[in-house]
Amino acid sequence: MTASEHVRLLRDLRSVRRFTAEPVAQHVIDDLLDVVRWTGSSSNRQPWELVLVRNRETVAALADIGGGPGARHLADATLAIVLVMANERADFDAGRCAERVLLTLAAHGIGACVAGFARPEQGDAVKQLLGVPADRTIRIAISAGHPAGDRAHLVSAERDVDDRLPLHTMRLGRKPLAEIVHLERYGSR
Amino acid sequence: MTASEHVRLLRDLRSVRRFTAEPVAQHVIDDLLDVVRWTGSSSNRQPWELVLVRNRETVAALADIGGGPGARHLADATLAIVLVMANERADFDAGRCAERVLLTLAAHGIGACVAGFARPEQGDAVKQLLGVPADRTIRIAISAGHPAGDRAHLVSAERDVDDRLPLHTMRLGRKPLAEIVHLERYGSR
Repeated sequence: MTASEHVRLLRDLRSVRRFTAEPVAQHVIDDLLDVVRWTGSSSNRQPWELVLVRNRETVAALADIGGGPGARHLADATLAIVLVMANERADFDAGRCAERVLLTLAAHGIGACVAGFARPEQGDAVKQLLGVPADRTIRIAISAGHPAGDRAHLVSAERDVDDRLPLHTMRLGRKPLAEIVHLERYGSR
Repeated sequence: MTASEHVRLLRDLRSVRRFTAEPVAQHVIDDLLDVVRWTGSSSNRQPWELVLVRNRETVAALADIGGGPGARHLADATLAIVLVMANERADFDAGRCAERVLLTLAAHGIGACVAGFARPEQGDAVKQLLGVPADRTIRIAISAGHPAGDRAHLVSAERDVDDRLPLHTMRLGRKPLAEIVHLERYGSR
C-alpha cells in the first residue's frame, strides 16, 4: 500500500447519482460506522448522529422532501444516510463526517452523492419523517448504492434529460490550481 | 490495494499537534493541491482558495491570532494551510475540503491538525495578515508537519502541561456506536 494509492482514492472520488437495486453489504456499513465514529470534530464534540434508511418508502419520501436535482438521486439509493447534527453551528464537522462517509463507500466500490435540505422547512420535514427531536439540525443526507455502470458518475439523476453529459463540462470540471492557490500571501503565486 | 487498507487510513486519522523542523516535501504539497482541487462541493461551486504559509514569522502570527489550545499547534507547524472561503455559508464544503487535506497528508505520513478562528475578529486579523479580500470568510487553518515521534498524536500542543495524556481519555476517545446510530427511525437501534 503506497501513498499514491490512497491519493488516487481521495482525488478520484466523484458523485454517483444512479444505482442498481443490489443492497449495500453489511460489512461495508460496519466499516462506514467505524470510520464515522472516529471522525475528528471541533473540541472532540462529535456533534453527529446518523439515521440509516433502507426502507424504500422512507427513501422515496426523503427524495420528495429534497426535491429538485440536488436530492432526486436519493430516490434510487438502496441506502440513505441522514446526518443529524447537534445544532446549527456544526456544518464544518458535518462536512468532515460526510467526506469520510463518501470515501469509505468509494473504497468498497459503492457510489454515493450528497443531498441537501437547504431550507429549514425541509430539515423539519425530515425530522418529522424520522422522529428526530426538534432541537437537532438536519441539512444533509447521503444517497448510496452500487453504481449503475462504469459511467454512473457522469450521469444525471434526472431520467428525463440526456443520459450522457459531455466530459469536461464546467459542471463536472474544476477550477485550475492557479485560481485557488496562493503562496505565503493572497495574490502571490 | 484493498478496501481495508483505505479504511484503515480513514479510521485511524488522528490529530497531530507537535512537529519536527523537517519541511513538508513539495511532492506532498502537489498531491495535496491536486486532491483539494478535485474535492466535491455544493453545486460544484468550489468555494475555496488556499494560502500555503511556510514563513516562520507568518506561521507564528497565525498561532497568535488563534490563541489558546485550539490553535497553538500552528506555532510548531512547518506548513500552515489557510482555508479562504467565498462566503459565510460554506462551512460544510470547508469541512469536506479540510478532511481531504488531513487524509492526503496522513497518506504521506505527515501529521496535521485543524485550528479554528471562531470569532469574526480572528478571521479579520488573518485576512489582514495575509492580504485576503474582506469579503472572504476565514475560520480554519490546518497546521502540518512531520510528527514529533510515534506518540505525537497523544501529545498536547501545550508544552507547559504533561506531555503524555493517558490513552482512552474522553478527550481522545469517541462515543460508542449505540449513541450515534439509528436504524430506519430515530431511536430505533
